Amino acid sequence: MAKELTSRSENYSQWYNDLVIKADLAESSAVRGCMVIKPYGYAIWEKIQAELDRMFKETGHVNAYFPLFIPKSFLSKEAEHVEGFAKECAVVTHHRLMADPNGKGLIVDPDAKLEEELIVRPTSETIIWNTYKGWIQSYRDLPILINQWANVVRWEMRTRLFLRTAEFLWQEGHTAHATEAEAVTEARKMLEVYADFAERFMAVPVLKGVKSANERFAGALDTYCIEALMQDGKALQAGTSHFLGQNFAKAFDVTFMDKSNKLDYVWATSWGVSTRLMGALIMTHSDDNGLVLPPNLAPFQVVIVPIYKNEEQLAAIDAKVDEMIPKLKALGISVKYDNNDNKKPGWKFAEYELKGVPVRLALGARDLENGTVEVARRDTLTKETVAIEGVENYISDLLKTIQANIFQKAYDYRASVTREVNSYDEFKVEIEKGGFLMCHWDGTPETEELIKEETKATIRCIPLNGDTTPGVCMVTGKPSAQRVVFARAY
Amino acid sequence: MAKELTSRSENYSQWYNDLVIKADLAESSAVRGCMVIKPYGYAIWEKIQAELDRMFKETGHVNAYFPLFIPKSFLSKEAEHVEGFAKECAVVTHHRLMADPNGKGLIVDPDAKLEEELIVRPTSETIIWNTYKGWIQSYRDLPILINQWANVVRWEMRTRLFLRTAEFLWQEGHTAHATEAEAVTEARKMLEVYADFAERFMAVPVLKGVKSANERFAGALDTYCIEALMQDGKALQAGTSHFLGQNFAKAFDVTFMDKSNKLDYVWATSWGVSTRLMGALIMTHSDDNGLVLPPNLAPFQVVIVPIYKNEEQLAAIDAKVDEMIPKLKALGISVKYDNNDNKKPGWKFAEYELKGVPVRLALGARDLENGTVEVARRDTLTKETVAIEGVENYISDLLKTIQANIFQKAYDYRASVTREVNSYDEFKVEIEKGGFLMCHWDGTPETEELIKEETKATIRCIPLNGDTTPGVCMVTGKPSAQRVVFARAY
Ligand SMILES: [Zn+2]
Ligand SMILES: [Zn+2]
Repeated sequence: MAKELTSRSENYSQWYNDLVIKADLAESSAVRGCMVIKPYGYAIWEKIQAELDRMFKETGHVNAYFPLFIPKSFLSKEAEHVEGFAKECAVVTHHRLMADPNGKGLIVDPDAKLEEELIVRPTSETIIWNTYKGWIQSYRDLPILINQWANVVRWEMRTRLFLRTAEFLWQEGHTAHATEAEAVTEARKMLEVYADFAERFMAVPVLKGVKSANERFAGALDTYCIEALMQDGKALQAGTSHFLGQNFAKAFDVTFMDKSNKLDYVWATSWGVSTRLMGALIMTHSDDNGLVLPPNLAPFQVVIVPIYKNEEQLAAIDAKVDEMIPKLKALGISVKYDNNDNKKPGWKFAEYELKGVPVRLALGARDLENGTVEVARRDTLTKETVAIEGVENYISDLLKTIQANIFQKAYDYRASVTREVNSYDEFKVEIEKGGFLMCHWDGTPETEELIKEETKATIRCIPLNGDTTPGVCMVTGKPSAQRVVFARAY
Repeated sequence: MAKELTSRSENYSQWYNDLVIKADLAESSAVRGCMVIKPYGYAIWEKIQAELDRMFKETGHVNAYFPLFIPKSFLSKEAEHVEGFAKECAVVTHHRLMADPNGKGLIVDPDAKLEEELIVRPTSETIIWNTYKGWIQSYRDLPILINQWANVVRWEMRTRLFLRTAEFLWQEGHTAHATEAEAVTEARKMLEVYADFAERFMAVPVLKGVKSANERFAGALDTYCIEALMQDGKALQAGTSHFLGQNFAKAFDVTFMDKSNKLDYVWATSWGVSTRLMGALIMTHSDDNGLVLPPNLAPFQVVIVPIYKNEEQLAAIDAKVDEMIPKLKALGISVKYDNNDNKKPGWKFAEYELKGVPVRLALGARDLENGTVEVARRDTLTKETVAIEGVENYISDLLKTIQANIFQKAYDYRASVTREVNSYDEFKVEIEKGGFLMCHWDGTPETEELIKEETKATIRCIPLNGDTTPGVCMVTGKPSAQRVVFARAY
């Protein structure tokens, strides 16, 4: 029996919430804004981690681990950074509880007040650059190419599973360089890694661009980003890579002796993606029947369901499946055989559809006689009957086809809702329909702010590979260097 | 030029501290008691994680993620648990900072006080069992076999890198079962996994046992543990697996309908190992020249150092190494070629010795002529000249030999300092020499406490596979069921 999902057309937001819960991906916890990532959701996150970690290492990075806590005074050292991150954060003020002398339970021990409060890291630039100070003296100590897998906390008022939570899991790269050019190259290289990962593994097409000043990371000179488009026409920022200039080096006094024996501040980047990617993955591909997972990130790519009337039939199917599984695994295909006798095939079909398993095989007594198996695709919800002999090759190809198909579907959808808009009146109409609007803008924060206030749309990015034909701003008529991407965003 | 280490005989404790710093494993941070795990140290931890994670999955476990924060009231729900963990912890009381109206910097915003304080998890039984309550109705929902990789915080007054830090990294398994027998089996199974990992990967021999009541985990009915012995004769608890009975199910009201339609509380286990394992690894094998790593956990198992007088010689060596590396990698051997021209061979030799790389190959012009290579073992500090042809097989065997040798060495050392002691007077003399003392004890917490106060020794465990000949307690003369293991411990 399928668990009922709200449909997307009925209530997109409710559909998403239902799906996350019913597909066993995550749930809210007893701690406001903090989620529990359930095993099936975490298995997807582990796949994401494994691929990204491999890509980071292939590009010369190593992992390390820095403290969870940041001394309060560190946050004040970089003027813009403090504006961005000191506002809503978890503040540790005491280090001990004691029994309540007036009754039951525990109270904070007033004698255990910290001299300086500690902030649970919202991001780690400050503690890391304070550490790098001890590691860097000369150009020979550079570059430092470090990544950290960690949890971070930002005290969000309105939270949604995966998309915006008080605690989330992420990776944060923090690199140190001898030259500005090298740091810029690094920031752009990691943007490419993110885009490559999003498109090849998540099957999520992304726009690569640079943020306007308003949307820039607090403390960065340039924030590069990848922007995805969800099925409701809203944009979702899926990853950012920051060129930090010498801001953090100056804040933490990190200098180095260059090759010509001159002392200079170190150049920095930072870059990160988070469990928010799970939200992008879910919202890009899934449908009213449930999750649709790209084969490259599915915890298991194939599920096999036996259809049987009695023990003998099941035994015969079990035997056949025992032959099939090693052949599938030999091709690198992950497979689950669900011969649980407590559930009916119809229940299992609905369950694995809900959980987005890319391919479902159903195998019955007649299939055994005919040497066939029923192959169902999750992305198209179509079925075919295929010969068991060589089915592993058929499935291997099919998984590639599904991966390509869901990417193309998302790509075509994005293309269908990306359009040029030339007047602000038209913009106000079009923004209600969602999608990416490519518009001329005069480059000022004031104009961007005005548009945001009047339409809730923001500049998602200034595309790196976009049309660079100049024009005039749709609002002020002032000169515009190129069209930029507007959308409402998550 | 080698970095000088304090020798073990001079000052064992200083030797350890020096080694952790100089081998680039970890360092203290600006936050009291919190460490920075540096890339080389973290690479070892990643190897530990990867092997354990594989072993957990092979035994049917899945990963998930639970919140960093625990509501204060949760800690009070299990009476013994609160005694053990509520005392020294990081307490979050506020969720915002603001600019100090009286000057520069930031202060805690008094308007942003939390209704209920949050504790940074010291361990996650409470938040997890509060979650399991929502997941368990029937025996069909059991068992739940979940592991979490996470950071935890315990506010320690005296900290040492890896061995005792305020924040540390660990894994914590939390399982839920329908029967007592199944939970006990699980707790013992995970003890076996830990022992197997310690001995086969870390090359650290361990005693398997059960804790006395005094040393039991707060909230457990039984705490199983593995105990290792360091080179200074002190014990180190390397992993624990707890049979929790129904304590947490009762505290969080987690019941299930069993097969006979009877409502019962759920049975629980939890089990964990932490970055403390790094301390055990370092202290078990290393020597006055630096780290000695087991090949099964070394970030790279082989380092190749070229010995050359000019560019031509280096080019010839580079070419030969380009042939060797794929052959080594094909056998699953990880290798680093250090042809950095800025450092002399002698510096590199000392550096990789300090970092514990199991095998060092040195390749010079004369070696090329003779078709030989110099192979140096880190564990024995011996060198041999070997034919380059087929050296990959030689090294593959050598790595297994080294792994076995350092285990045997640690095993023999432990055997040499493990002895039976029959009188308390003898005990007081012997405990000063370190090692494991196998003694009869009357089974009472009072006697154990007395021994601890007078000698600083604790019962490390009641061995699971030990001599079960009864005797009389060395202190009170009362009956003793079997000898137990006493030692001073980290
Ligand atoms: Zn953008
Ligand atoms: Zn023990």
